[in-house]
Amino acid sequence: MTAFNAVRRLNAADPDFARQMDHLLSWESVSDDAVNGRVLEIIKAVRERGDAALVEFTQRFDNLEVADMADLILARERLDLALQRISPEQRAALEAAAERVRAYHERQRQDSWSYTEADGTVLGQKVTPLDRAGLYVPGGKAAYPSSVLMNAIPAKVAGVPEVVMVVPTPRGEVNELVLAAAALAGVDRVFCIGGAQAVAALAYGTESVPPVDKIVGPGNIYVATAKRHVFGKVGIDMIAGPSEILVVCDGKTDPDWIAMDLFSQAEHDEDAQSILVSPDAAFLDRVAESIERLLPTLERADIARTSLSARGALIAVADMAQAIEVANRIAPEHLELSVENPEQYLPQIRHAGAIFMGRYTAEALGDYCAGPNHVLPTSGTARFSSPLGVYDFQKRSSIIHCSADGASTLGKVASVLARGESLTAHARSAEYRIK
Amino acid sequence: MTAFNAVRRLNAADPDFARQMDHLLSWESVSDDAVNGRVLEIIKAVRERGDAALVEFTQRFDNLEVADMADLILARERLDLALQRISPEQRAALEAAAERVRAYHERQRQDSWSYTEADGTVLGQKVTPLDRAGLYVPGGKAAYPSSVLMNAIPAKVAGVPEVVMVVPTPRGEVNELVLAAAALAGVDRVFCIGGAQAVAALAYGTESVPPVDKIVGPGNIYVATAKRHVFGKVGIDMIAGPSEILVVCDGKTDPDWIAMDLFSQAEHDEDAQSILVSPDAAFLDRVAESIERLLPTLERADIARTSLSARGALIAVADMAQAIEVANRIAPEHLELSVENPEQYLPQIRHAGAIFMGRYTAEALGDYCAGPNHVLPTSGTARFSSPLGVYDFQKRSSIIHCSADGASTLGKVASVLARGESLTAHARSAEYRIK
Repeated sequence: MTAFNAVRRLNAADPDFARQMDHLLSWESVSDDAVNGRVLEIIKAVRERGDAALVEFTQRFDNLEVADMADLILARERLDLALQRISPEQRAALEAAAERVRAYHERQRQDSWSYTEADGTVLGQKVTPLDRAGLYVPGGKAAYPSSVLMNAIPAKVAGVPEVVMVVPTPRGEVNELVLAAAALAGVDRVFCIGGAQAVAALAYGTESVPPVDKIVGPGNIYVATAKRHVFGKVGIDMIAGPSEILVVCDGKTDPDWIAMDLFSQAEHDEDAQSILVSPDAAFLDRVAESIERLLPTLERADIARTSLSARGALIAVADMAQAIEVANRIAPEHLELSVENPEQYLPQIRHAGAIFMGRYTAEALGDYCAGPNHVLPTSGTARFSSPLGVYDFQKRSSIIHCSADGASTLGKVASVLARGESLTAHARSAEYRIK
Repeated sequence: MTAFNAVRRLNAADPDFARQMDHLLSWESVSDDAVNGRVLEIIKAVRERGDAALVEFTQRFDNLEVADMADLILARERLDLALQRISPEQRAALEAAAERVRAYHERQRQDSWSYTEADGTVLGQKVTPLDRAGLYVPGGKAAYPSSVLMNAIPAKVAGVPEVVMVVPTPRGEVNELVLAAAALAGVDRVFCIGGAQAVAALAYGTESVPPVDKIVGPGNIYVATAKRHVFGKVGIDMIAGPSEILVVCDGKTDPDWIAMDLFSQAEHDEDAQSILVSPDAAFLDRVAESIERLLPTLERADIARTSLSARGALIAVADMAQAIEVANRIAPEHLELSVENPEQYLPQIRHAGAIFMGRYTAEALGDYCAGPNHVLPTSGTARFSSPLGVYDFQKRSSIIHCSADGASTLGKVASVLARGESLTAHARSAEYRIK
């Protein structure tokens, strides 16, 4: 007698399992022509009228009384003030998280390299930071200070001289934790704007907002659509789908712990996805019981209930090998290996945004403070993409410095290949360098 | 008395110079609704009808008599046959290029890493190759064997088990050099399909074509549009604009060499862009003379003439410092530093796809065989993106393995931050792990 539509149960032995999985995982973000049209108009207006358009849109969409652009610029001192205003406990937690995130990301920094060949030719790769990065931070309820740390710190570790943050303040609401996180992360400038107009301002610049080279950070459908449109003019991080977790458990973790780990994903939003896989069918029953018992005690019970009913699943598999197969099929954003000796399975795992190893590593620890980034590839895109990292704020330039001898040797090869492609100016340019 | 509209001359001392540069560099690819609509239809047909749609589109667009899909599958032996058919000189050149490209890219391979903290918590980053990569190779005239090497070798160096190549064979035309390059690069499977239908097949799979995780390689407007649409379902490399070169010369290189280097870009297509910057105004005159004298001797003189008239420029600057400023403003795909001691300028260069150092390093050497990749960020996107590389075929997974002590410490921090974000299931999940 469940209090809600019970979480769907699947069994990998079912002949129809592959099709059931396709259905469970299917997710295509709806492209909305109306949203598209409005976003294109907003971008056009910001490109043409700059600050004036920003002020207008902010008045209209954020319900804010704004005289001019000066009202939308937040002084750096305001960030430091926020650091004073939050509780000492919150400040200590933010500082601990920031320090760990910084320490982990420092290991991702890539250095330039080069090597010299026998004939004196030098080849290499020069690594440089972006000049300026833009960070979108949602306002209101979905304002997550942890996201400020996760997006801004990698940029600063990469050496980006200027990180520009935009955050809407609907009806004047300012989130002190978000501003405090910006202070700790070293954000350089803050504008109180949001939506497609903020993305357009960051991409093209206005009288007040400097144009950036890359825009990162989460946002609603208007923000995501605007990011897609400005991609090419600037870099973007990714268009994220709903958040998901796959827990693989050998059946020996406290079922309440596993239920709460599933809830921690399901409470995000109705489209979030929580899946548990276990070779122990009786354990799946125990987790189902925990879910029923604990769900009503959640502050965000309604959201979690909808998410679990619509997109959750408890999957029985024959053994751990099959559990890992399922994990590779899903290529989950978060993979929790709540098993004995998780290291033994690591070599077989090919696709996952982040891997949480062992019974103690709750996803929530990674979301906030373990150190690795919480911006991760969703909806199976871990098959080809990576967590947000320092590498997203660095770029590479190839270095080629041919010696006279090297150019002569290479010139002969290039000449043959260029003539094979009928590009004879290429060939002659190379041939000039043959001794 | 020039034989054509002379190459535009600019001077950085001109008060209007910044605006002139904006105009010179302006490039927005035209988004064509008609193309968009046709591409969406093709993608839909391939998703719904698989091989049957591929056969139909190939008959229609490539003017090919095809009975069924089997006619569009090229056996691996056919690639080896191509290696026998090309001239020994061509084979030696392809092999030399492939070996150098492989050697350079092997230095880009990234390894997994991890570290253990005092309380036993392990953090790390696992690096894995994509399972399967798709390589689009244009057919007909624009079929470049060098592009096959540049796209397939990084994938193979990354450890991608299966590289799938698609190449249209309009009217049955097969380019032996392209197939020979595929053999040398280690391409695993080849399908004789092209256009938006080939991109759709690689993204979604058909009965015969396996779905890939990422699609790389150049193509026409249909291919580029299709890549933009399937982005998200699979990864893509980039949407390339026209190719460009910026030559910075101190005035002491043979002006014929510089003219030919500019031609080697201008001969690509009418939209290609060749720009020379020098602090020596008299040298610009000498290069202009070389251009006029040599242009009529080019096989692709018409294309080069149009490109140089429409988009070329010879720019006078006050000194080398200003030349480097111009280079950073342009963020060129190819930057040739045809100067004495080019190393001295390297630290100041912030944005460039590839840097060709010194008088001997013609861009053509890098295009074919120096080692670094010739797939480079165009149209100023070097401000935020990098040459195609091994890193494009690898992805990362974060590793977090908390010890019991580590989870207890981190759990307290996560709990405070989660409650600050009103995500209480996150908090409780972390709190379960506090001792």
